[in-house]
Amino acid sequence: MPLLATPQFQHFSEPLALQSGAVIAGYTLAFETYGTLNAERSNAVVVCHALNASHHVAGVYAGEDKSEGWWDNMIGPGKPVDSNRFFVIGINNLGSCFGSTGPMHENPATGQVYGADFPVVTVEDWVHAQARLLDVLGIAQLAAVLGGSLGGMQALSWALQYPERVRNAVVVASAPNLTAENIAFNEVARRAIVTDPDFHGGNFYRHGVIPKRGLRIARMIGHITYLSDDVMNEKFGRSLRPPDLLAGQAPPSDDPATLLRDYHYSTQDIEFQIESYLRYQGDKFSEYFDANTYLLITRALDYFDPARAFGGNLTRALARATAKFLLVSFTTDWRFAPARSREIVKALLENRRDVSYAEIDAPHGHDAFLLDDARYLGVVGAYFDRIAKELA
Amino acid sequence: MPLLATPQFQHFSEPLALQSGAVIAGYTLAFETYGTLNAERSNAVVVCHALNASHHVAGVYAGEDKSEGWWDNMIGPGKPVDSNRFFVIGINNLGSCFGSTGPMHENPATGQVYGADFPVVTVEDWVHAQARLLDVLGIAQLAAVLGGSLGGMQALSWALQYPERVRNAVVVASAPNLTAENIAFNEVARRAIVTDPDFHGGNFYRHGVIPKRGLRIARMIGHITYLSDDVMNEKFGRSLRPPDLLAGQAPPSDDPATLLRDYHYSTQDIEFQIESYLRYQGDKFSEYFDANTYLLITRALDYFDPARAFGGNLTRALARATAKFLLVSFTTDWRFAPARSREIVKALLENRRDVSYAEIDAPHGHDAFLLDDARYLGVVGAYFDRIAKELA
Repeated sequence: MPLLATPQFQHFSEPLALQSGAVIAGYTLAFETYGTLNAERSNAVVVCHALNASHHVAGVYAGEDKSEGWWDNMIGPGKPVDSNRFFVIGINNLGSCFGSTGPMHENPATGQVYGADFPVVTVEDWVHAQARLLDVLGIAQLAAVLGGSLGGMQALSWALQYPERVRNAVVVASAPNLTAENIAFNEVARRAIVTDPDFHGGNFYRHGVIPKRGLRIARMIGHITYLSDDVMNEKFGRSLRPPDLLAGQAPPSDDPATLLRDYHYSTQDIEFQIESYLRYQGDKFSEYFDANTYLLITRALDYFDPARAFGGNLTRALARATAKFLLVSFTTDWRFAPARSREIVKALLENRRDVSYAEIDAPHGHDAFLLDDARYLGVVGAYFDRIAKELA
Repeated sequence: MPLLATPQFQHFSEPLALQSGAVIAGYTLAFETYGTLNAERSNAVVVCHALNASHHVAGVYAGEDKSEGWWDNMIGPGKPVDSNRFFVIGINNLGSCFGSTGPMHENPATGQVYGADFPVVTVEDWVHAQARLLDVLGIAQLAAVLGGSLGGMQALSWALQYPERVRNAVVVASAPNLTAENIAFNEVARRAIVTDPDFHGGNFYRHGVIPKRGLRIARMIGHITYLSDDVMNEKFGRSLRPPDLLAGQAPPSDDPATLLRDYHYSTQDIEFQIESYLRYQGDKFSEYFDANTYLLITRALDYFDPARAFGGNLTRALARATAKFLLVSFTTDWRFAPARSREIVKALLENRRDVSYAEIDAPHGHDAFLLDDARYLGVVGAYFDRIAKELA
């Protein structure tokens, strides 16, 4: 029987001061929990999500097919992060479009939908908001905080903002900040959204439209950076879209040597499989993702840079952290390359912290952190097994 | 005194049958020549251009500041391709927006501007059209054909389509075809253009508008792929846009430690230098580049695949070539990585062809093929010196 998940909502009426200097009034966080908090309240694990995810980390919703959590291969009964041993909490971040207060909700100060007025939120702000939820749940200290990509940045930031509340930080496929190229890809995606005439300066809700063109482009760019060149070649290569998907196209010849159809010679129609895949991903995304949320989350990525306040010295920046760390990177991840994880490892070691590091030889690029890879799941599982044994 | 360039135009009234099966009626090619054709008519060099370039390869236009040709560091008197020894011909490709017949010109069949009806042109079509110009100029055989990136694909194709007319082919920063990732980037750029409401299905001319939003996005994506991650970090890193460029922003503090200004915490304003750079490049490009030309040229890139007719066997595909070859690649070029050039080298060697190959350790990514790098210019210069000596 699959793990059943139930979303919960916690409202906070006390305003939250944000890093930007702005203040967000009352807000709600959506979250889910899996497993049971032990009597010592010592087995809690927070899972932080990345760009396109939510508090729905594991399990399924009753009666809903295909409602599996985004990290269901990692978290659940008997999984690497075992909900039979840990009390796992998935929290949707402020500014998201999946349940927590975000740009599509009403700004209590104006009575209008926030839209573009939703304040800029940072990784640090998210961590503060998550910490407040732990206060409500009566959890003083986490057994671990865990996240991949942007979620890994939050795990790292937890260890810096609340060192006394984090015993272990697991940072997967992440980086101590974005490179210029990372920021560049985010900026192109944002420009595609912001310059879509249906964006209306972020106030498209009141116009009854959605900037789908921009969202599609943003998602297509994202997908390219999530995959490795190799896996894209293996999955799609230069294959053409099958003829049967094209109206009026003759069926493939019986001769296997000519099963490759001719080019159509069109600049606007789909010719290659990779085009079809990207358009499909873009279309799907534009149906459910909020444009203002996309801007907010990519900006949170851009801004994250704990070394900035230390003149760029990451070693000094990480001196505050007292947690034990596991870092994991993937060889073909060119979005957050292993070298970026190694920067964090080096800075932690220079502070004489307890660090484990695994560089997984996986072909899937950045996406690997969400996929089934026995070595990867094994490494994380062994690390959490050790944590569980320390609980006993 | 700088080399003075003068554009020339050659009209062809005989229709050209295209690879797609379409036929283009009378058309004009813009071209420039530098140096003098020798009495034996044996010293001609054709230079093929890439996406954003033209027949204006070298020299300047009289009375026009900053009108330097796009490969002026490579071609001209005393340059690696020395116009004192060679008769160099730069030809603008069909479908371009810089002088040769393209989508913004009148379709003689309809009396309307071509727009989206301009036929799809391929690398092979361009080479056929260039060969016709050589017929007019009375040049039976080229000392060399030379090109970088998409221009390199044309140089390779010249050696396959007209083996008897090419003594040397110089293929720089190129590839035997695009990878899935290359096609993916092209497709995102095309979608940005095609879904811009000002594109009007490609017939924006008659609406008096230009799909600038889409062109900007396309160019921004392009620029990211032209540069290496390293050079982007070196040039821009995470530097913020200087405060003096921002209205109402306080001047930087005197304290060098705080010269890094604070974040503005904005999702839509420019925060980082890399964003400023990309927006500038996008804006500039959208002022002068034709949207339909962008679609056509990226499609020519996608379609190029000489091995396709040979079941993907590049060695068999290149068996036709009889020219001597120089291939050059750049270590940090992730758009057309050295491995792609090596595929061509390997296929030529398997055909026992005369091949030189230089892999230049340059930090600039794909852009390196346009930049001053002493080793690179030296390699090409030495190769052309050898060709010149064989002429004598």
